[in-house]
Amino acid sequence: MSSEIQVPLPALERLSTYIRCLMELERSEVESVSSQDMERYTQVSAAQFRKDLSYFGEFGKRGKGYRVSELRERIAAVLNIDKEQQVLLVGAGNLGSALIAYPGWHYYRFRIAAVFDRDSEKVGSSIRNHLVLDIERLEEIAASVGARIGILAVPARDAQSVADRLVQAGITGLINFAPIKLHVPRGVTVREVCFICELAVLSHQVHHPAEPER
Amino acid sequence: MSSEIQVPLPALERLSTYIRCLMELERSEVESVSSQDMERYTQVSAAQFRKDLSYFGEFGKRGKGYRVSELRERIAAVLNIDKEQQVLLVGAGNLGSALIAYPGWHYYRFRIAAVFDRDSEKVGSSIRNHLVLDIERLEEIAASVGARIGILAVPARDAQSVADRLVQAGITGLINFAPIKLHVPRGVTVREVCFICELAVLSHQVHHPAEPER
Repeated sequence: MSSEIQVPLPALERLSTYIRCLMELERSEVESVSSQDMERYTQVSAAQFRKDLSYFGEFGKRGKGYRVSELRERIAAVLNIDKEQQVLLVGAGNLGSALIAYPGWHYYRFRIAAVFDRDSEKVGSSIRNHLVLDIERLEEIAASVGARIGILAVPARDAQSVADRLVQAGITGLINFAPIKLHVPRGVTVREVCFICELAVLSHQVHHPAEPER
Repeated sequence: MSSEIQVPLPALERLSTYIRCLMELERSEVESVSSQDMERYTQVSAAQFRKDLSYFGEFGKRGKGYRVSELRERIAAVLNIDKEQQVLLVGAGNLGSALIAYPGWHYYRFRIAAVFDRDSEKVGSSIRNHLVLDIERLEEIAASVGARIGILAVPARDAQSVADRLVQAGITGLINFAPIKLHVPRGVTVREVCFICELAVLSHQVHHPAEPER
């Protein structure tokens, strides 16, 4: 376990925004950043940014800002993305293929350990060097890989049954792209990626252009 | 414009969660719902739920709960998703195809008015009855459709230039799936769909299973 620091969920979500921004800055070889810079990049206020960092101790220097690489490492430790983690991906359709093609996996040290599908036409094919495995092998592979995280890129009608299998196989964290509320036992965390929710929020915003930023 | 009510962003984001849940309840023919039920479904506290609804006037009955369809309609009006809206989709690869296949568009009254790509092999093909158009026609089509919202399902390297064109063409709201920070003029809103951010948050959560729910 990388970090014992417990952070409230809204702060965690902001940390995930900060680290994404810090990774981009690092790739652009920016060495230091102020909380005001961060406000401009992330739309989270400088005050909120400093407050969020206080969860794991202050280490910026007043007037000098933060060292990008140090801050990125600290946040990575809090998010537990400072060591390689195996994830299982279920669903090798368009969405699954788009996820496999996502270029940022290694920055976050996630590794797609296995890709599953139930469609016999997909099983045995390869997507960017990931062999698509029969969903029937899920339990066996999950046990051998020791993954905690599973990603559901399956249609809504299959999402609950696949989630049940993943949980049975020891997965305790699920990312769900299907537009359906999953029922999982206590101790299992589900995070929904709901793009239509983003679109609904945007719909309000484009009709209210003076919307204050958070 | 459906609603003049201005709602702070965090509340807006919760409204998008509530309405998704209410749509599911409606499809399951559930007629009324209490704030406690909503807490169970959405993990947002009943108190927060009631507070969020207070932005647009109280209309639940103590002890009787809320009528699902009425509440769904009210929130839809606040989100401005109570009338059909045209959206432009740029990128007809795996992600774009997955978005087109998303089954929930009509519940939110969004309509994909046009799909664009720059790849000549994709242009002219159809994805679920959407003809893929050459990106060179973006300005012409945007003007004729009158869309305000654009969705970027393109690689990171193309995202900024496509965003610039969409903004030039009159788009004021962008959904960005590319892992890159877009620079847009004042008055244009960008919402990022960052699945790896969700994964980073989940990574913390699976290592801290006692995480309190928001």
